[in-house]
Amino acid sequence: MDLTKYITSVSDFPQQGILFRDITPLLGDGKAFQAVVEQMAAFAKKRGAEVIVGPESRGFIFGCPVASALGIGFIPVRKKGKLPRETFEVNYGLEYGENTLCIHKDGVAPGQKVVIIDDLLATGGTIDASVQLIEQLGGEVAGAAFLIELKALKGREKLDDIDVLALIQYE
Amino acid sequence: MDLTKYITSVSDFPQQGILFRDITPLLGDGKAFQAVVEQMAAFAKKRGAEVIVGPESRGFIFGCPVASALGIGFIPVRKKGKLPRETFEVNYGLEYGENTLCIHKDGVAPGQKVVIIDDLLATGGTIDASVQLIEQLGGEVAGAAFLIELKALKGREKLDDIDVLALIQYE
Repeated sequence: MDLTKYITSVSDFPQQGILFRDITPLLGDGKAFQAVVEQMAAFAKKRGAEVIVGPESRGFIFGCPVASALGIGFIPVRKKGKLPRETFEVNYGLEYGENTLCIHKDGVAPGQKVVIIDDLLATGGTIDASVQLIEQLGGEVAGAAFLIELKALKGREKLDDIDVLALIQYE
Repeated sequence: MDLTKYITSVSDFPQQGILFRDITPLLGDGKAFQAVVEQMAAFAKKRGAEVIVGPESRGFIFGCPVASALGIGFIPVRKKGKLPRETFEVNYGLEYGENTLCIHKDGVAPGQKVVIIDDLLATGGTIDASVQLIEQLGGEVAGAAFLIELKALKGREKLDDIDVLALIQYE
């Protein structure tokens, strides 16, 4: 299945000069959505995932179905002020803007194998922050899966030792 | 399975006087998460769902696995400024605060049967807004499924003709 035909490119969104890759046509197509979840789930299983971590909010879109399909837990990484119990937090720069991400302190158990799932690997800031949060909890990042990788932004370089799956790559 | 034991109640979050029902322990338990998704998927299938709609961001948590499990599309309802193409929007009051929600104009096709999925039915504002957006597109709301219903907030009254599933109810 050629997944790229389910991605719509939108110029100058959310700001001038950004070519936004809109995944909503893919989500709206049951077969395409399912194909992505199956490929990510196969990757996570192969990597020995015991739990899936996904950053808010588009990390929930693929991370939750993958966790559910594998019958393993899902741990959300969320923006500041959204998680109600004790958290670790980390600040980082985005492709545009900056952000603080948090994880519950009991989210990942020490030694647990984690696969991170998100829609997009751009500069890698969100994923690098997620890795830091997981490692603070003593978890082991066993892989990271994305629908889309924007290769020009070199996010993969931030994930040096981590096995990465990207189903669609744009230069 | 008694799902209530996977919900942690947190006092005074996100503000004084609110008893927050934290679903993250449930998400972190693979069997409990899967049980919820299976029950919601069975409901959506019985209601003839052709597509699932879920409001950002916790609606993604159960809506995406249900769509993926059924092999049907998922249409996100998102906050203003998040969807890149032409949208309809609606303003509404929340349990605390207010919000604008949007849907892509091509998100739901006229006549399509839609089941809405979210984690929580509180005052019903988010779901009522989602119903309005779906109906603006000519879709038919065939049901709404929630993990939790806070009965005291009477959200169900806003959904008069809609078949509602709530897996956990608090008075």
